[in-house]
Amino acid sequence: MTTTILFAAPQDSWDAYRAPLTEALDATGIDYRLSRDIPAEEVEYIVYAPSSGLTDFTGFPKLKAVLSLWAGVEKIVGNDRLTVPLTRMVDDEGLTQGMVEYVTGHALRHHLGMDAHIVNPDHRWEGKAPPLARERPVTVLGLGMLGRACARQLAQIGFPVTGWSRTPREIEGIRCLSGTEGLAEALSGAQIVVLLLPSTPQTENTLGAEQFALLAPGAAIINPGRGPLIDDEALLAALDSGQVGQATLDVFRVEPLPQDHPFWAHPRVTVTPHIAAETRADSASRVIAENVRRGVTGAPLLHLVDRGAGY
Amino acid sequence: MTTTILFAAPQDSWDAYRAPLTEALDATGIDYRLSRDIPAEEVEYIVYAPSSGLTDFTGFPKLKAVLSLWAGVEKIVGNDRLTVPLTRMVDDEGLTQGMVEYVTGHALRHHLGMDAHIVNPDHRWEGKAPPLARERPVTVLGLGMLGRACARQLAQIGFPVTGWSRTPREIEGIRCLSGTEGLAEALSGAQIVVLLLPSTPQTENTLGAEQFALLAPGAAIINPGRGPLIDDEALLAALDSGQVGQATLDVFRVEPLPQDHPFWAHPRVTVTPHIAAETRADSASRVIAENVRRGVTGAPLLHLVDRGAGY
Ligand SMILES: NC(=O)c1ccc[n+]([C@@H]2O[C@H](COP(=O)([O-])OP(=O)(O)OC[C@H]3O[C@@H](n4cnc5c(N)ncnc54)[C@H](OP(=O)(O)O)[C@@H]3O)[C@@H](O)[C@H]2O)c1
Ligand SMILES: NC(=O)c1ccc[n+]([C@@H]2O[C@H](COP(=O)([O-])OP(=O)(O)OC[C@H]3O[C@@H](n4cnc5c(N)ncnc54)[C@H](OP(=O)(O)O)[C@@H]3O)[C@@H](O)[C@H]2O)c1
Repeated sequence: MTTTILFAAPQDSWDAYRAPLTEALDATGIDYRLSRDIPAEEVEYIVYAPSSGLTDFTGFPKLKAVLSLWAGVEKIVGNDRLTVPLTRMVDDEGLTQGMVEYVTGHALRHHLGMDAHIVNPDHRWEGKAPPLARERPVTVLGLGMLGRACARQLAQIGFPVTGWSRTPREIEGIRCLSGTEGLAEALSGAQIVVLLLPSTPQTENTLGAEQFALLAPGAAIINPGRGPLIDDEALLAALDSGQVGQATLDVFRVEPLPQDHPFWAHPRVTVTPHIAAETRADSASRVIAENVRRGVTGAPLLHLVDRGAGY
Repeated sequence: MTTTILFAAPQDSWDAYRAPLTEALDATGIDYRLSRDIPAEEVEYIVYAPSSGLTDFTGFPKLKAVLSLWAGVEKIVGNDRLTVPLTRMVDDEGLTQGMVEYVTGHALRHHLGMDAHIVNPDHRWEGKAPPLARERPVTVLGLGMLGRACARQLAQIGFPVTGWSRTPREIEGIRCLSGTEGLAEALSGAQIVVLLLPSTPQTENTLGAEQFALLAPGAAIINPGRGPLIDDEALLAALDSGQVGQATLDVFRVEPLPQDHPFWAHPRVTVTPHIAAETRADSASRVIAENVRRGVTGAPLLHLVDRGAGY
């Protein structure tokens, strides 16, 4: 029996995924049909990106699962017209490695105070060597696939790293804290804070005025997680007071970041256009193909989304 | 017998070293006297920085060795008024760690194309995720204490790393090349080049027009080694043509870099004021104290400078 797989994502995704996904599916040995155009009543699996515009999954009678190409599923997790299992992009090695490079690079940028040299219109020969990384406490909020990998890399380079998650975790070389009660301790005295939490009702405004006040004065914020994790107004106030020294933001409540948003013009804010980590077509295709294979052979799907927790 | 140690370095060094050096010397158990002011005829060891102004070592009849606080000894190695053994600062863990942080940070900065986001006056929401580090070949010129440590860290993060030295070296995970004949191969196709060679007659202008032409177009240069390693005119030409995309320079033929030097105003050059790595007083003091102890007990000194090789 041929398994039918609908590719529901924009043309540029199709251009990127067609070849590697075909190769990955071929490698599983299953008999399949992959297309952007399959009659709804025949579709069994949907490879999905929210940017496809597809939001109503009720018209696919044979649908067995929706396989998200994206790591963040906040746009679809609450959709009541989706009742079959939903998986998200998780252990794509390209995605994790890209995030580790982004977070490590920007952490070192803040640590070394690079911006003062990159933008130095007065040609000042000034500045001392920064302290060593071991004197710069870093806190990573979220210890999932991405937060864990970033925390490990930062610790390997020499930063003292604290991590925070919903449930208690143990990671060698990382001070791990958890739950609402652990947050204040995780943030106290931190000089660099990295946000790698999913966007859920519980994580909204994880960093607000009260939390910024706990950080070391002049701390740097790096947010490659999701926009709603931060209270934008409180961040702007903390930047203006100097309590937060710099913020590097890759994700926003509205994307692209509107031209009139104060983040654009703020001298202490660096905006990156949601590029921290990209699902790489080759490794992501292997993750998707493995889940189709599991579905077809009756094995449990990997990376199932927990609708209750929201991620 | 009391061993007399002259501290020949400026006041700010004395302020930084007095306590940790005293502590490190105390820990060796030897009987010593450490001061900035000792009659020349009593001096046995000189803890030395070129910025002290001391250049004539002939007036110290009991002098046994000069222990440099600096890693680079080009200002003193050719001094014919210095005939006793000369040691340089080598395995100071603070120095190495600082250099690793500087090099890794700037390599990731160039790799991620950060500057386009840090300086973005038109507020352009633009740019794709960069390729992964594994697709970005990096070459480290010099595989001494510092080059080796940087090469290892860059490889650990994921860059394919090639190293180059005078004599053949073997370092796990690094493609090692050596000698004049190895240089062209080491540079061919490199996208990031890090200079960690000492300044000697042989290393002058290691990178000139011919070498820049071998790099991948748009390559980045990071020079925390010494100014004379690069032919400045050739670098400016390569930057203007775009063959070199960016240069981050910490060291110069004249320091501080003169205000009229074209590097200051060049849009593709980042100047850092010789801060890549600093000898840290605490760890450096232990290195110096260990060498005094060795001198006193007749053991061979560590980190002796080879006058012939010039480093
Ligand atoms: N900017 C980009 O290009 C980009 C790319 C990919 C992903 N992302 C973002 O990165 C996020 C993290 O990805 P991931 O794969 O690492 O996610 P993940 O594996 O689901 O991990 C999420 C982490 O957040 C913790 N968490 C969730 N809710 C929490 C709460 N209420 N309080 C405390 N901790 C909570 C989880 O705790 P437990 O460990 O206890 O479950 C877990 O450690 C994604 O959700 C996405 O938004 C951004
Ligand atoms: N910017 C800063 O703040 C700062 C701070 C400290 C040091 N530095 C600079 O960093 C340099 C490197 O320090 P280090 O402690 O790593 O020095 P090192 O241990 O002496 O190593 C020097 C390396 O350069 C290689 N080399 C020397 N001459 C060469 C030649 N003609 N051709 C090819 N390779 C050659 C050596 O080759 P072999 O392995 O074959 O001997 C060795 O691998 C210092 O000399 C200093 O100038 C800068």
